[in-house]
Amino acid sequence: MDKLKAVLEKLAQIFHIRHRILQQGLAECLGTLVLVTFGCGSVAQMLLSRGSHGRFLSVNLAFGVATTLGILISGQVSGGHLNPTVTFALCLLGRVPWRKFPVYFLFQTLGAFLGAGIIFGMYSDALWAYGQGTLSVEGTNATAGIFATYPSPHLSLLNGFFDQVIGTAALIVCILAIVDPHNTSVPAGLEAFTVGLVVLVIGLSMGFNSGYAVNPARDLGPRLFTALAGWGSGVFTVKCYWFFVPLFAPFLGAVVGVVIYQLMVGYNVEGEARIQGRREEEGSLLSTTTINEEA
Amino acid sequence: MDKLKAVLEKLAQIFHIRHRILQQGLAECLGTLVLVTFGCGSVAQMLLSRGSHGRFLSVNLAFGVATTLGILISGQVSGGHLNPTVTFALCLLGRVPWRKFPVYFLFQTLGAFLGAGIIFGMYSDALWAYGQGTLSVEGTNATAGIFATYPSPHLSLLNGFFDQVIGTAALIVCILAIVDPHNTSVPAGLEAFTVGLVVLVIGLSMGFNSGYAVNPARDLGPRLFTALAGWGSGVFTVKCYWFFVPLFAPFLGAVVGVVIYQLMVGYNVEGEARIQGRREEEGSLLSTTTINEEA
Amino acid sequence: MDKLKAVLEKLAQIFHIRHRILQQGLAECLGTLVLVTFGCGSVAQMLLSRGSHGRFLSVNLAFGVATTLGILISGQVSGGHLNPTVTFALCLLGRVPWRKFPVYFLFQTLGAFLGAGIIFGMYSDALWAYGQGTLSVEGTNATAGIFATYPSPHLSLLNGFFDQVIGTAALIVCILAIVDPHNTSVPAGLEAFTVGLVVLVIGLSMGFNSGYAVNPARDLGPRLFTALAGWGSGVFTVKCYWFFVPLFAPFLGAVVGVVIYQLMVGYNVEGEARIQGRREEEGSLLSTTTINEEA
Amino acid sequence: MDKLKAVLEKLAQIFHIRHRILQQGLAECLGTLVLVTFGCGSVAQMLLSRGSHGRFLSVNLAFGVATTLGILISGQVSGGHLNPTVTFALCLLGRVPWRKFPVYFLFQTLGAFLGAGIIFGMYSDALWAYGQGTLSVEGTNATAGIFATYPSPHLSLLNGFFDQVIGTAALIVCILAIVDPHNTSVPAGLEAFTVGLVVLVIGLSMGFNSGYAVNPARDLGPRLFTALAGWGSGVFTVKCYWFFVPLFAPFLGAVVGVVIYQLMVGYNVEGEARIQGRREEEGSLLSTTTINEEA
Repeated sequence: MDKLKAVLEKLAQIFHIRHRILQQGLAECLGTLVLVTFGCGSVAQMLLSRGSHGRFLSVNLAFGVATTLGILISGQVSGGHLNPTVTFALCLLGRVPWRKFPVYFLFQTLGAFLGAGIIFGMYSDALWAYGQGTLSVEGTNATAGIFATYPSPHLSLLNGFFDQVIGTAALIVCILAIVDPHNTSVPAGLEAFTVGLVVLVIGLSMGFNSGYAVNPARDLGPRLFTALAGWGSGVFTVKCYWFFVPLFAPFLGAVVGVVIYQLMVGYNVEGEARIQGRREEEGSLLSTTTINEEA
Repeated sequence: MDKLKAVLEKLAQIFHIRHRILQQGLAECLGTLVLVTFGCGSVAQMLLSRGSHGRFLSVNLAFGVATTLGILISGQVSGGHLNPTVTFALCLLGRVPWRKFPVYFLFQTLGAFLGAGIIFGMYSDALWAYGQGTLSVEGTNATAGIFATYPSPHLSLLNGFFDQVIGTAALIVCILAIVDPHNTSVPAGLEAFTVGLVVLVIGLSMGFNSGYAVNPARDLGPRLFTALAGWGSGVFTVKCYWFFVPLFAPFLGAVVGVVIYQLMVGYNVEGEARIQGRREEEGSLLSTTTINEEA
Repeated sequence: MDKLKAVLEKLAQIFHIRHRILQQGLAECLGTLVLVTFGCGSVAQMLLSRGSHGRFLSVNLAFGVATTLGILISGQVSGGHLNPTVTFALCLLGRVPWRKFPVYFLFQTLGAFLGAGIIFGMYSDALWAYGQGTLSVEGTNATAGIFATYPSPHLSLLNGFFDQVIGTAALIVCILAIVDPHNTSVPAGLEAFTVGLVVLVIGLSMGFNSGYAVNPARDLGPRLFTALAGWGSGVFTVKCYWFFVPLFAPFLGAVVGVVIYQLMVGYNVEGEARIQGRREEEGSLLSTTTINEEA
Repeated sequence: MDKLKAVLEKLAQIFHIRHRILQQGLAECLGTLVLVTFGCGSVAQMLLSRGSHGRFLSVNLAFGVATTLGILISGQVSGGHLNPTVTFALCLLGRVPWRKFPVYFLFQTLGAFLGAGIIFGMYSDALWAYGQGTLSVEGTNATAGIFATYPSPHLSLLNGFFDQVIGTAALIVCILAIVDPHNTSVPAGLEAFTVGLVVLVIGLSMGFNSGYAVNPARDLGPRLFTALAGWGSGVFTVKCYWFFVPLFAPFLGAVVGVVIYQLMVGYNVEGEARIQGRREEEGSLLSTTTINEEA
């Protein structure tokens, strides 16, 4: 045991000191893996059991809880973004350096890819039985929807794009309120649980059009996996190259969410905090003037 | 970036100092927008998917979580009422000045109006497909119920009025217990989550008659939106001008709720706190007398 | 407003000083009223909507959340028992004086009676429509099950009695663990939420036999109400005087629960705390001996 | 009462000092009993009511809440493992001594056995009615699945083994993140609730293949009970001795979970904490060197 301990300590030293960003990438990878394993697992359970072991509500709950757990697992090391649009929004606000963005995006997508692989292995017998020996993207026995998102028949590309923009904007508005250092509404330690509630409610209210990806990594990783695992290139070409929508629209949604939250709430709580901070810095002399301005 | 920072600081100063009430209005607007976007979104998802992507329980959960998130987003700035009857009840108790009431009501209704607009845009293809090209208030393909509340066939106007009074009274009793400064049951920071539970349980138990509006802004804003967006004036005239009920009955319910809570619990915890406070203020001299009174 | 304030202060003084037990009774009454209004309301919603606005899961969730809210409302004043078997168990353990038991039982039953009345008023049109003009205890349009509990067809009296004993014992074991001053597992402030989870899980797992009353007040109050409101004496006589079971079996269950928890966990954590306390009292002299005993 | 108190104190002393491990065993026994009573109770309710009083989601919720309550009841005394694979994983990491493993395993299995007995007694009439007088392991009226887990028809032994490995690995990864002393994500006091969420989400996403035992004690105890209570030896021999899978695969899953968590997150947070700790110990002299290494 002492030998093992020594090896571990050495490993810990090497990893810790030299590759901080790799540590964070690994944490994002594991967090997103957990998110996708539980999330896509619940879709698989609903679909493959033909509703007997899960309904859409189960999927909504699973994605919510999975998000919470993914954040709890990785939060200490990497911040627990699990979603490139969250990284993107925090970069836009200057809270995360831009150089982290591609690394996080890569590892999040890798985690989602691996999570899809776990679910594929776990439900391989059931996939085979359900698909009657085929892995198809469309049709009555289609199973590609377990992994990546596809639009409902009623949905046009334009509406689908708007759907992803709105969904992601809603996600980002809520996350910004939850992690805003000046908006102290959410008690410390409950952030991960509250973000899980956000994902739950997005699924309850914005999931009918195209399955609320609102996360390019969660969609791209499993889609890549299905392309390689036997569903073929149809997962990309189907529905007029639909895969572009959950890949790019969420980033626009992140911008919209940042602007809405900052204009309507963020700057106000920040401004108040800044003014109070300045008063305290500048002492009692200036504070009289400021009070007059307020009157 | 420095330029942007300077602009933002200036904006923050201007907004903060001159228009505190506007800040609060904007926060209420965003909070109610979030409430209605997620809440009515879940009704849309249930109805338009004909039950495959949501049942009434999903709607109950969505309104509960949406309330929690709306409060978390706006609570720091405006108190997170999101409902004119909550503002009304707090005004009645003297905890909020009456001059805030019309401003909050206006911005809450505006937020609900905008939230309805977001859902309309998001599900426009699905609304079109479900309504077969029409936006109707009554009939098998009616979709007006996504936005505002309408009574069940069995419900009379009188029972409907009573329904809204009771529902709002229940809401207000619970909220008063949660925010009562003398009743320390709910741990600090969990108020928003607890209010979300209240909205959940009202939906689980009082939602069958007419969809538990219990919030004039949440009902009026989306109703106005539907009137303008193509459903026409029928949204107001249908069922003997039903819209009056969720607009006025909740205020009566708020009065009932304030009286019940204050008489049965509120005055007791308050009285105890006041007497203890007075004792501490008046020192050891009087406290002997008070103890004698108790004996 | 000043006049009102003076009146209130006077009322608060009178109530507070003279009638502490009445205050507590009122709080238990309001708490149980909230429990039964939301709980039985959800049964009404499920039954009267013939499943479209609620399933058994909704009822389970509603009773859980209603319990939490009832405790939050009354906890500060009365402890938030809401259930005579809880009062009984705490009396057995000497944590509540026996003289409070009849008062609490009375006011809990009164609260449950009034809660049933609120639901009766709220859903009167729906009750009329569902029952086709009758209020019947048995048959296809029976509505008595909204208020009090009745056994499933498969259930014998003996099994029903055992069912209530086990259900209440499970409730009491969990509540004792939650409120045990020596077992610090549940963080302060979350007791009400955890008790709500207990009620939820009892409903999920022990609700099929006879609807998990596990609370004589919650069952007797509404049963009395239905007897007076038009269902007649059948609510008492039906199924071989079934009403005796949820009235008496839970008290036996409380005894069983107290014994199981205390023997398997309670005395151990208590004993440890007591020994540690004694050591600290008796100083370093004795502690040496005690450590030897442990070895 | 004083006499009782004296007896209890004596009992507490005897138990406390001489048999600490027995205390912990009793706590594990009661915790697992609560887990299985509520968990298998919900399966019984779903199955015996033929879906009217519960769906698979109810079972998922029940197992989640039951886990939380079992941990809360026993956590103070024994740590609240309730699952031999959790004890096993903590032994692997050196946080629990190996000598506790067989004791915990024994008492956990005993608790699960007794919990199954309670559910058998509680639903005996319903079991009789559903099985039409027989207790069968297979067929349309099979009821053995209430107590132990059995594979779905589509599942091969190999896939079933993999299913249990993955499910347990996911459980262990999440639990290690929750209880990791260096990963401070979960606020103190909420561990039991978070583990309940883990069990919930495993049920939502990994329950279709064979009912997510992921716990040898939870499966073996009730299986033994059914073998003795009338279902016969078929509970062991059915489906090519399926019972071996939920008995052994979870331990392999625990190893996989420990390795994944420690390699991807655990060693990193631990390493960081260790290095920080060493710096503080070794003072400012060495810390300069370490900072250089980091650059």
